[in-house]
Amino acid sequence: MDKQYPSLLLERAVNEFAKLPGIGSKTAMRLVLHLLQQDKTAVEAFGNAIIDLKNNVKYCKVCHNISDTDVCSICSNTKRDSSTVCIVQNIRDVMAIEATQQYQGLYHVLGGIISPMDGIGPKNLEIDSLIERVAQGDIKEVIFALSTTMEGDTTSFYISRRLKDYPVKLSVLARGVSVGDELEYTDEITLGRSILNRMPYVTN
Amino acid sequence: MDKQYPSLLLERAVNEFAKLPGIGSKTAMRLVLHLLQQDKTAVEAFGNAIIDLKNNVKYCKVCHNISDTDVCSICSNTKRDSSTVCIVQNIRDVMAIEATQQYQGLYHVLGGIISPMDGIGPKNLEIDSLIERVAQGDIKEVIFALSTTMEGDTTSFYISRRLKDYPVKLSVLARGVSVGDELEYTDEITLGRSILNRMPYVTN
Repeated sequence: MDKQYPSLLLERAVNEFAKLPGIGSKTAMRLVLHLLQQDKTAVEAFGNAIIDLKNNVKYCKVCHNISDTDVCSICSNTKRDSSTVCIVQNIRDVMAIEATQQYQGLYHVLGGIISPMDGIGPKNLEIDSLIERVAQGDIKEVIFALSTTMEGDTTSFYISRRLKDYPVKLSVLARGVSVGDELEYTDEITLGRSILNRMPYVTN
Repeated sequence: MDKQYPSLLLERAVNEFAKLPGIGSKTAMRLVLHLLQQDKTAVEAFGNAIIDLKNNVKYCKVCHNISDTDVCSICSNTKRDSSTVCIVQNIRDVMAIEATQQYQGLYHVLGGIISPMDGIGPKNLEIDSLIERVAQGDIKEVIFALSTTMEGDTTSFYISRRLKDYPVKLSVLARGVSVGDELEYTDEITLGRSILNRMPYVTN
């Protein structure tokens, strides 16, 4: 038997929440009832924040990162190294790399990775715009920072082929045992690669 | 270091989601980016569903359940037994009991339980309105369906004292081993009570 909601308005709100990934109808109900207990201005702030974001958000013309301006704060920052471009799948990856404070170059957000199973081909991604950026000649190094999955590797490979006639250095994030990880719990493929790709031991 | 959001609009939306119970900033980010990928009408439907609910929701004058009308569909259903009232903490409990299809009486939603630690006393709950309903004389049985916690028991006890001069039968949900549960995994208190409150064995 379907759940009987005592109110259609409640049902609509719960159903909207339950459309979100990872939110089932019980969690949706809990979230909606929580919001209902907040005052009117707080609920309006919540609802309008997401509507405003959708209506007013921009994507950087250069790197396709989310932005409040036509060119994002990273691309327009003259202190950053505009000769290095890091290719990522989405803006969460940009935020993750930025949080490390170890990277001073620019980004290029593909908006996904090549995944024939999901119907996503090169034309659905910001690959042509990347090639154009490289063709302008200022970029010296392109760093692939995509997931180490079949799809991620395919995408890196596809892009590397498209870039092969341009004088850019291609590099990829170092793969290996995570800092702080115990060897015995590291998966075999990672451990195997970390032996093959061993690095000089440097004492500071 | 605080997370740097590439857009203030994005940051605002993520922060609003992260205020919800059980939603951390990473989940909030994932939900917001999911919504951002939906089309404009879907995002507006989401935002407006919760705003409309807050602005237009009513609470039943009789039982204080959430409702689209002044008197809810349960209280105004003449087929239901208006001589029995089940006292619950919140509307989720109403929905849970309704889903069993085993109860034909009415409800009274307290809006919480007595909890001095959280500053919730009898005056913050719909207890006076319950006494008034009983005082009208049509109610013959009041069923306590509150949580079996210190607070739930305190609330049931408080209400039972307030009702002691009215000719109503007071009852409480049966407590015992859950249907389908293995005895060895049932907690001691529940198992103990289920022995003390053992019921006649009836074959159908």
